[in-house]
Amino acid sequence: MKNVVVRNVRRTDAGLVTRLGALGVATAHEAYGRFGLMKPYLRPVWSGAEAAGTAVTVLAQPGDNWMIHVAVEQCQPGDILVVGCTTDNTDGMFGDLLATSLMARGVRGLVIDAGVRDAKSLREMGFPVWSKAISAKGTVKATLGAVNVPVVCAGVNVMPGDTIVADDDGVVVIGRKDAADVVTKGEKRVADEDGKRKQLAAGVLGLDMYGMREPLAKAGLVYVDGPEDV
Amino acid sequence: MKNVVVRNVRRTDAGLVTRLGALGVATAHEAYGRFGLMKPYLRPVWSGAEAAGTAVTVLAQPGDNWMIHVAVEQCQPGDILVVGCTTDNTDGMFGDLLATSLMARGVRGLVIDAGVRDAKSLREMGFPVWSKAISAKGTVKATLGAVNVPVVCAGVNVMPGDTIVADDDGVVVIGRKDAADVVTKGEKRVADEDGKRKQLAAGVLGLDMYGMREPLAKAGLVYVDGPEDV
Amino acid sequence: MKNVVVRNVRRTDAGLVTRLGALGVATAHEAYGRFGLMKPYLRPVWSGAEAAGTAVTVLAQPGDNWMIHVAVEQCQPGDILVVGCTTDNTDGMFGDLLATSLMARGVRGLVIDAGVRDAKSLREMGFPVWSKAISAKGTVKATLGAVNVPVVCAGVNVMPGDTIVADDDGVVVIGRKDAADVVTKGEKRVADEDGKRKQLAAGVLGLDMYGMREPLAKAGLVYVDGPEDV
Amino acid sequence: MKNVVVRNVRRTDAGLVTRLGALGVATAHEAYGRFGLMKPYLRPVWSGAEAAGTAVTVLAQPGDNWMIHVAVEQCQPGDILVVGCTTDNTDGMFGDLLATSLMARGVRGLVIDAGVRDAKSLREMGFPVWSKAISAKGTVKATLGAVNVPVVCAGVNVMPGDTIVADDDGVVVIGRKDAADVVTKGEKRVADEDGKRKQLAAGVLGLDMYGMREPLAKAGLVYVDGPEDV
Amino acid sequence: MKNVVVRNVRRTDAGLVTRLGALGVATAHEAYGRFGLMKPYLRPVWSGAEAAGTAVTVLAQPGDNWMIHVAVEQCQPGDILVVGCTTDNTDGMFGDLLATSLMARGVRGLVIDAGVRDAKSLREMGFPVWSKAISAKGTVKATLGAVNVPVVCAGVNVMPGDTIVADDDGVVVIGRKDAADVVTKGEKRVADEDGKRKQLAAGVLGLDMYGMREPLAKAGLVYVDGPEDV
Amino acid sequence: MKNVVVRNVRRTDAGLVTRLGALGVATAHEAYGRFGLMKPYLRPVWSGAEAAGTAVTVLAQPGDNWMIHVAVEQCQPGDILVVGCTTDNTDGMFGDLLATSLMARGVRGLVIDAGVRDAKSLREMGFPVWSKAISAKGTVKATLGAVNVPVVCAGVNVMPGDTIVADDDGVVVIGRKDAADVVTKGEKRVADEDGKRKQLAAGVLGLDMYGMREPLAKAGLVYVDGPEDV
Repeated sequence: MKNVVVRNVRRTDAGLVTRLGALGVATAHEAYGRFGLMKPYLRPVWSGAEAAGTAVTVLAQPGDNWMIHVAVEQCQPGDILVVGCTTDNTDGMFGDLLATSLMARGVRGLVIDAGVRDAKSLREMGFPVWSKAISAKGTVKATLGAVNVPVVCAGVNVMPGDTIVADDDGVVVIGRKDAADVVTKGEKRVADEDGKRKQLAAGVLGLDMYGMREPLAKAGLVYVDGPEDV
Repeated sequence: MKNVVVRNVRRTDAGLVTRLGALGVATAHEAYGRFGLMKPYLRPVWSGAEAAGTAVTVLAQPGDNWMIHVAVEQCQPGDILVVGCTTDNTDGMFGDLLATSLMARGVRGLVIDAGVRDAKSLREMGFPVWSKAISAKGTVKATLGAVNVPVVCAGVNVMPGDTIVADDDGVVVIGRKDAADVVTKGEKRVADEDGKRKQLAAGVLGLDMYGMREPLAKAGLVYVDGPEDV
Repeated sequence: MKNVVVRNVRRTDAGLVTRLGALGVATAHEAYGRFGLMKPYLRPVWSGAEAAGTAVTVLAQPGDNWMIHVAVEQCQPGDILVVGCTTDNTDGMFGDLLATSLMARGVRGLVIDAGVRDAKSLREMGFPVWSKAISAKGTVKATLGAVNVPVVCAGVNVMPGDTIVADDDGVVVIGRKDAADVVTKGEKRVADEDGKRKQLAAGVLGLDMYGMREPLAKAGLVYVDGPEDV
Repeated sequence: MKNVVVRNVRRTDAGLVTRLGALGVATAHEAYGRFGLMKPYLRPVWSGAEAAGTAVTVLAQPGDNWMIHVAVEQCQPGDILVVGCTTDNTDGMFGDLLATSLMARGVRGLVIDAGVRDAKSLREMGFPVWSKAISAKGTVKATLGAVNVPVVCAGVNVMPGDTIVADDDGVVVIGRKDAADVVTKGEKRVADEDGKRKQLAAGVLGLDMYGMREPLAKAGLVYVDGPEDV
Repeated sequence: MKNVVVRNVRRTDAGLVTRLGALGVATAHEAYGRFGLMKPYLRPVWSGAEAAGTAVTVLAQPGDNWMIHVAVEQCQPGDILVVGCTTDNTDGMFGDLLATSLMARGVRGLVIDAGVRDAKSLREMGFPVWSKAISAKGTVKATLGAVNVPVVCAGVNVMPGDTIVADDDGVVVIGRKDAADVVTKGEKRVADEDGKRKQLAAGVLGLDMYGMREPLAKAGLVYVDGPEDV
Repeated sequence: MKNVVVRNVRRTDAGLVTRLGALGVATAHEAYGRFGLMKPYLRPVWSGAEAAGTAVTVLAQPGDNWMIHVAVEQCQPGDILVVGCTTDNTDGMFGDLLATSLMARGVRGLVIDAGVRDAKSLREMGFPVWSKAISAKGTVKATLGAVNVPVVCAGVNVMPGDTIVADDDGVVVIGRKDAADVVTKGEKRVADEDGKRKQLAAGVLGLDMYGMREPLAKAGLVYVDGPEDV
């Protein structure tokens, strides 16, 4: 690992980011071919948080938040800070002071494969955070990592400038070059779902609406009457 | 495993289900001889959710929600859908469209040994869900499972028609033939607890109220004065 | 293990406990030299709970809450009950009846390395609880443990009379002899943080405020312009 | 839960058990329609252990091995003891004394959803054990459970008399009524695999041998030449 | 936490340590009143390892093995190094170079609540290690901890000079003042077990040998004949 | 995710791969700046396995090994198959038939972020496998993934053609362009370690050999004589 800070990374177009955020995590993930979803152990620190922005990435050492301090300077309005760690760690690498600093720079949220603290303050400040844990465990500032290099966070490889969409359903990462395509497919999907929702609410079965009866029969599904000794 | 859908299962009497629901999970579980409780990793998607109903069971494959679509048709008003999976899996097998469909059929909730998505919508719709995870991970419809066969869900064997009671304390399963007995014992327990609660609130010690001092002494418990080098 | 109940333990001075509570978990932990924090799997049963008090300790057996009943009698106003278990266990060892009893004695909260039940009632009663799990699993009263002996709870050795501070960030334990020192350091830290928060909110970078640029350069951090093939 | 010991359970035919054992876990599980496999956290205490037998089931309490002592009496030559627990527990419920007793009765092994101890002695005695953990944690004999009732063990519902097959790949449970069918399908499968193994060893590709190329193309798989910016 | 190295700690008498080691982990733990056992996630790096010695304790930071280097100097022949960590961590804090150094000083083994590396070399050198993980993850030498202070390791509070007994069944810690008592009880237990083993091997049931039939009946255990609809 | 198979990927030079393999995992990882190590939950199926080769990557679906069959055709002598999964899964995606096929093509091993089966046969065949689990759970061939695209496996982003080094200490991934540099640094490191090992074996302390005493004192480490009330 080179101990490097990369400045001036190419970010996804801001208009596309906004439209990806409007899709929400589940739809963006589906429109991306069911790709890019971080592992579900990442959870919002406060329920109802939603954010979409461009990734500034950090590779941190366990129990050490030095590189997060370094990364703040690289953030622009509309960014989301994404922190991976070189090993599994739940220490509280981030709290209300760093959140204050990020909010002052127009940063929209934090996604961190480690712990955070000051959970109550983060909620009161309205700063959205998705983390692996809430922990007051203090950290040192002793070992270098890197900023704006490719980082694996919660099972997904994140490139600086990628779009991050996060809500109660988790966090999805959309590659910069794929953003436009995902927007197109996702917006179509939203339109389609509205129609489906109305049909289902009216009592139409998904079995019929999706035309599943034939492929189910072909796959060998059998209906029997109970009680049965299965 | 036979790929079968069993129709017309025998359900627990609706009146008993209502009374079991009124007991709540902790009391029903105690009245059942401390039996039938699912593992505590199943958690409500939104706090405060409560449901009681009769089980329609699904055995699903990892990353595949096809059989949930099949199961919807087998649901009646008053049912709760119970989904087991052939292997550990946290994918988002269930979301707001399926919830819409189940609500249209009068289903009272979902218990799933896997993940769900659209957490925000489920909360807004007021559809109660107990799951292993919240995850936007999309699923396929490619492999058969079974509906209304015995299914192990979160460590408990569930028979179609069993009563499911679920609240903030978890999920308990009551066998169809045991429902009346559990109602009787549980309602007596509730009556007893009210009296105990008043005594304890008045400062009476459980040690005295439950008559524990003698068995404790007999078991060998010793009281000493501190500070002590134990 | 001796099956013993130690009476009359020395407790931390009540005034110090109040001031430690006012610091909150994160600050008290930092002021204690980043020591004494329980593992982050302990979580508040209801969000927003805060408590500070002196430890009455319990060593319980898995699936057995007998010693909690014994411990109630040893509690005084201002105490927090701390329950360790001889092995990993998530059973619901504590519910609303025990909470009623503890509240009647002026106890400020419960910290338990196991499960609790009656989560809804605990929230409604406003009784603060930090636990490893929420589980309705009933327990027996069959095997002795100990009360007011040193107990390891969630990775921290707790002595009877130690101060427990708990909030949304977790649970920290402060040794009786260290309380005054932690108060002094913690209150200074709070004063310092207010000034830092204002600077950061005004856009000052932590890199500058903390004087990090020189040590980072000395450690070998390099800045480059992207796009880069890192 | 009734605290009951059921005597004289119907066991799977001994000849079928032997033939199921000869199939091994992976083949028996496939021949059973990919059903009946316990969760993979159950591991052999010593590598290379293999066993097949009929289930005598135990439902034990956490930290309590009383019912295992009760179950010994119900065991016959050719049985395998299967222990489920009412809650997650890793205590050492079983050691060399109980193994001695089981071997004296002709029991072929132990499958336990909890811990065992005396690992070295078990290996030296050649008594096969599949467990969730190795732990010296001692247990009490204080609370009743049940013997020869249906028990969920590591995610599978086991009926007394079912066939248990266990080896380095894990543990599979075959229902008594399904044994003959699984033997037939499994033995055919073994015969087929020998031919396949020879072809594959000779360099034939599975893609061709299994005729996968057409369904892959139909499903939309595309081949491109690298290097590619995927 | 004070960053301190305590020299000249009082160690358990060497003769007692030898006799505790001869008991093995399971017996020493039972003789200690089922106390002092570390959590079972600590496993020997190579099967068959056995060690008994006096604890030199280390409190390390995550991803940092500096204090282990410091601790080597405090070790004497007959010691076992015991490493706790201020937070959960699996990094490879220890490898063949440190093992070489410890062996040169007559140290009998390592117990570490973190990871180790060079697993193959440790096995070939015959240096006994119990760890939470095997991981090649490299560590830094940047942050102080402490040596020979009380340390919680895998759930047990270890005082410098305590006896550590470790084998395939795990790791148990015996307090210095309790060593003689545990030796006495443990040796009696071993003598008793030999007689029991012979009886059990001869087919005597534990139910009879331990006199369990009466207490079981008194507790309410019922025997019925199967098949039964339990 | 595009469902694509990329042919003709650029592989790391074979000579460099051999030299990286000779370094072993721990040294290669250190020489790579402590980078590229997969999470330690990946373990060898049989102890003592060692392998080094160039990555052919697979992105598989949970419970589905179709793409592994597809990947076999893309393997060349000297490759190692690396399988990531779109979600956490422990199913037995790989067994002796696939191993036979890979061995016939000169493949040196398998690294899989999922389960494998036929553990005994794999050991007997001498085919090296690092996996997340051993599980007989059968898989389907129903859903497409991708071959030779970047894949996150056990926390590391793997590019086709990267070097994989694996042994008892785990699995490390070296980028193609970094291989020569890592070889140089690693071989120097090996030479240095031999000298250090001799000194340590002779009783020289690491504190002196590494010159740690001054930085420790500077960091504030204090030595005191025990017994001490720390």
